[in-house]
Amino acid sequence: MLINKKKFKTIWYNNSKDNVQIIDQTKLPFTFEIVSLNVLEDVLVAIKNMKVRGAPLIGATAAFGMYLALKETNSVKKIYEAANKIKKTRPTAVNLFWAVDKMLSKIDMNNSLNKNKEILLSEAKKICEEDIDKCKKIGQNGLNLIKKIARKKSEVNILTHCNAGWLATVDWGTATAPIYYARDNNINIHVWVDETRPRNQGSSLTSYELNNEGINNTIITDNTAGLLMQRGKIDLCLVGADRVTSNGHVANKIGTFLKAVIAKEFNIPFYVAIPTNTIDWEITDYNDILVEERDSNELSTLEGLDENNKLKTISIYPKESKVYNPAFDITPNKFVDALITEKGIVRARKDELIKLKDG
Amino acid sequence: MLINKKKFKTIWYNNSKDNVQIIDQTKLPFTFEIVSLNVLEDVLVAIKNMKVRGAPLIGATAAFGMYLALKETNSVKKIYEAANKIKKTRPTAVNLFWAVDKMLSKIDMNNSLNKNKEILLSEAKKICEEDIDKCKKIGQNGLNLIKKIARKKSEVNILTHCNAGWLATVDWGTATAPIYYARDNNINIHVWVDETRPRNQGSSLTSYELNNEGINNTIITDNTAGLLMQRGKIDLCLVGADRVTSNGHVANKIGTFLKAVIAKEFNIPFYVAIPTNTIDWEITDYNDILVEERDSNELSTLEGLDENNKLKTISIYPKESKVYNPAFDITPNKFVDALITEKGIVRARKDELIKLKDG
Repeated sequence: MLINKKKFKTIWYNNSKDNVQIIDQTKLPFTFEIVSLNVLEDVLVAIKNMKVRGAPLIGATAAFGMYLALKETNSVKKIYEAANKIKKTRPTAVNLFWAVDKMLSKIDMNNSLNKNKEILLSEAKKICEEDIDKCKKIGQNGLNLIKKIARKKSEVNILTHCNAGWLATVDWGTATAPIYYARDNNINIHVWVDETRPRNQGSSLTSYELNNEGINNTIITDNTAGLLMQRGKIDLCLVGADRVTSNGHVANKIGTFLKAVIAKEFNIPFYVAIPTNTIDWEITDYNDILVEERDSNELSTLEGLDENNKLKTISIYPKESKVYNPAFDITPNKFVDALITEKGIVRARKDELIKLKDG
Repeated sequence: MLINKKKFKTIWYNNSKDNVQIIDQTKLPFTFEIVSLNVLEDVLVAIKNMKVRGAPLIGATAAFGMYLALKETNSVKKIYEAANKIKKTRPTAVNLFWAVDKMLSKIDMNNSLNKNKEILLSEAKKICEEDIDKCKKIGQNGLNLIKKIARKKSEVNILTHCNAGWLATVDWGTATAPIYYARDNNINIHVWVDETRPRNQGSSLTSYELNNEGINNTIITDNTAGLLMQRGKIDLCLVGADRVTSNGHVANKIGTFLKAVIAKEFNIPFYVAIPTNTIDWEITDYNDILVEERDSNELSTLEGLDENNKLKTISIYPKESKVYNPAFDITPNKFVDALITEKGIVRARKDELIKLKDG
């Protein structure tokens, strides 16, 4: 998608340097900076510090991480250690584990080291291509839901939380893909963008990417959706997910649950857009999902531009105050109207999800 | 209550200077600054710019504003104009209108100007004293609800939104008064403090005032309560209000509605603590409440301390992004378990509220 009118993906392999390049998303919206991932350690830091984030993009980055790891070692033990290190960067997004395991399964000890490197590089690229393809299909499937509303209204108002945009994937996005397809189908769209405290991925990433694609959007605080729904200003909710249990419970950015509950109160459809590799087939009880708890600094400090347009970090809380910062919450399946996947739209129920399972 | 171990009220009459003094709440938590209100204009600015905020404190300040206005004029026309100017500072808190009308009703043209000034000063002081008294009674009444939970649990976990603390009143607070009484009754309390975007009154004022009173509290983002409730970490919700309709609909800081709805989902009691002058007896349809829409700067900029401990204001959004900033939302009465008032605890229903009406 576009940044400053130029096409980008969030991650790509650089042939000439044999390394991986990403957009450093911690610098957005103020600085657009491409950084290189040359070794495994770079990948670990990039995921941990959220230079890349969003379940599908974390998965793609992890895949390249396995390739970079194999460039550093010929030891089977070390490559397993690398896999575990990558898996430990963040605990909630299931795509991370999926991608690492997929890469591991491709290493064949009958092959030469060089052949295995070649296989991993090609597999990481394939994961990226498939991610784009899945997002496009999510977009086409989700478009049908938006079209239904557009038949009755001159403008479709969509609430989204956090960033499940192209910046959370390799391209196109999960929750944003139907929005981009709707735009391409001349449907009049307006997106209410939840700021998404504490890391403000809504304002810093979603609004930024929609601005760059010319899609009408308005930033609101995470507190605002209740009033908007009461006033009929939201037609549907569309979010992504970091992990979906096999019976349709949805782990996503903290605050998603509140939006799903209020949407139900107003009978506003609440849709979750995911590639099927975000489904954790092992889990039905959402208490089994580990919810990441992150540093209190993510709430108590903020970065922005000062009066001289210089980047500054400020502390906004009383120094003595305690802070609690869980990164995700879990929306029980009864609040989810449908899951929009690359394989079709299903209700958030075990007997419907099972249709999406491979093999 | 205490600030840096010294007792304060939020507003007081200064005898020697014949003016009114307030704590400038826009400067908290980083700077504790007392400012003087010498003329009507000072009062208008103080309310508009939220140097004083919170429905009861806005009322008290408005009352003193009428006294200061009468010091500037002997014209009946001008005093009416002053009353209208004060009423136009902020549209949602009903205490503002209540206080101005109460002051107007005390001016008797049979009196000398000096006598009327004396009456207004004394009435403004009385409004402050009565506000304190009401808050204490709210505290005593609310204490009973907390005691019930404390019988079953070693720690009572309370969620609050925005600041309905002593900083929102003259002293004691509405939502915090039961908390202070619980503390004084040796009940083990922990308060989850919603940050309360966009102006962060939760972190900047509520956590600050609870810290100063030694009450255990933790700041969370406005997104967090769903997860906490799902995990059984919240026993009750306690908030204030800016206006309550005669049938119990509650206008309060934006985001309150989301908390009330999720609380209902978990059968967690949702209480609204108010003095009865926050009730608007004229209104039953909550669509008749004007919800103030404030400047987008309140979302897109933030003030805090930089690395040198200097106050800095930074911009945190993409420059091109649109922003929408309604200050309040309305919680329909079905989500409110009870109103805690100085006259007792009632359910949020017309036939129960009516018992609170004077005369």
